[in-house]
Amino acid sequence: MGALHKGHAALIRRAKRLATAKGSNGKQGKKGSVVVSVFVNPMQFGPKEDLSRYPRPFAEDVALCKREGVDLLFHPAPSEMYAADASVAVTESSLSSGLCGASRPGHFDGVCTVVSMLFNVIRPDIAVFGEKDWQQLAVIRRMVRDLKIPVKIIGHPTVREEDGLALSSRNRLLSPDARRVAPRIYQALLAMAMEAEAADGGRTSLARLRQLLRKDLAAIPGAEIDYVEIVDETTLAPLKRFFPGVNARALVAVRLSSVGTGPVRLIDNISLKSPL
Amino acid sequence: MGALHKGHAALIRRAKRLATAKGSNGKQGKKGSVVVSVFVNPMQFGPKEDLSRYPRPFAEDVALCKREGVDLLFHPAPSEMYAADASVAVTESSLSSGLCGASRPGHFDGVCTVVSMLFNVIRPDIAVFGEKDWQQLAVIRRMVRDLKIPVKIIGHPTVREEDGLALSSRNRLLSPDARRVAPRIYQALLAMAMEAEAADGGRTSLARLRQLLRKDLAAIPGAEIDYVEIVDETTLAPLKRFFPGVNARALVAVRLSSVGTGPVRLIDNISLKSPL
Repeated sequence: MGALHKGHAALIRRAKRLATAKGSNGKQGKKGSVVVSVFVNPMQFGPKEDLSRYPRPFAEDVALCKREGVDLLFHPAPSEMYAADASVAVTESSLSSGLCGASRPGHFDGVCTVVSMLFNVIRPDIAVFGEKDWQQLAVIRRMVRDLKIPVKIIGHPTVREEDGLALSSRNRLLSPDARRVAPRIYQALLAMAMEAEAADGGRTSLARLRQLLRKDLAAIPGAEIDYVEIVDETTLAPLKRFFPGVNARALVAVRLSSVGTGPVRLIDNISLKSPL
Repeated sequence: MGALHKGHAALIRRAKRLATAKGSNGKQGKKGSVVVSVFVNPMQFGPKEDLSRYPRPFAEDVALCKREGVDLLFHPAPSEMYAADASVAVTESSLSSGLCGASRPGHFDGVCTVVSMLFNVIRPDIAVFGEKDWQQLAVIRRMVRDLKIPVKIIGHPTVREEDGLALSSRNRLLSPDARRVAPRIYQALLAMAMEAEAADGGRTSLARLRQLLRKDLAAIPGAEIDYVEIVDETTLAPLKRFFPGVNARALVAVRLSSVGTGPVRLIDNISLKSPL
């Protein structure tokens, strides 16, 4: 979606390494190119969401892509992507319904539709997505699996500011006060993950972990919790309890009140190791 | 969907000509292969439809493909196409709602989903579909347009028995009596199309044409009309009147009662030339 930051730069570098690895694209010895798409996709914004104020610093995006040695920057106009009478969508009905999907109906249909379109236009061998948008990554993996899209999906770990705040294009909308407290979202996740490693598993402790996380987030000045969930990292099904072998992930969304821009919605997530 | 007949053979021959035409697949001088998929797609059948009794004469299908020089026959098991927890669909919300879509909710989502999957697995340059299933062809063209699927869609004219009955895998379900009267569907379409060529356009004459067609179809013994429509051939929007430049098409669906198998649903369509 553009407004590229160091997180995107990390994805680009990962793609570059994958593209230049020998035979990485299935064609022995032939090296690939790195394509970046910059497209603020109207279909994934709800009618009351921040489509118009979503940042679009395109000249800076071009500069970052040049610096990172991107081979092609794909930057279509909305009218080039969507016909006025467009009537086809790619929908996902299981992983999309909870978490961000609960407060953003239609959001992941917009994501699935535009990502299929981008795949059809670019025909990549590999595509790299950030783990910061964990639900998006899981939904895209499901789409690729179910529709048999011949693209290998790579998730890249969340890149963070030195104080732990997950990089996001929306961070630049934060007022100085909101920016100061925003790192406490990740601190809350980290504290809970350390508790989880020490926990003995079972139903009670998982409820307790969620409660702990909720308390820490609620204590952030100006924060309003959208959701706090601990889910199976692949199916995104809410977990009732830990058990060995389950790959759990805690996901949170918080609205931080921010003077001047209105509340800014931030998301983050962390892997939880189940106790053995 | 298999149960291949002379109509499918015509599609295969068309594909063969396209594949062996020089540079036909965009790669100058390189000749293509012809792939046939045989897959009775559960997702496009409703819960009360004829999925289980849909004919599956696979050995005969293989023989036809061999005879026609098909390079690859793709015949997956349903479980190879759909995971038990599959949750992704390709949907079309405009052209799919009327005509066959009205009595077959979800049918064209099933068609769009499986056709995208087949395209992703096979990655054809060109795909040939029969005009007999006109709405399906229009929906697939729309899907390819909207999702920017890099496949060229070719519509091939309906192949008919000598008495005019459009070839269909479902024809073999017709009792001798039903088979005897079935050609009257196309005769009704032809009679109406000849009237249309002579007509002077305008609202009245179009309503009259539909009425004429409806009367002829209702007169077929054992026939129950599902729909009779005159639509724009691309958008499938019902036409109120002819005007120059409109590409009109009449589409009908009829249930013919057939002793032994229960009613058999037959569809057919014809192009109408607008008077200038």
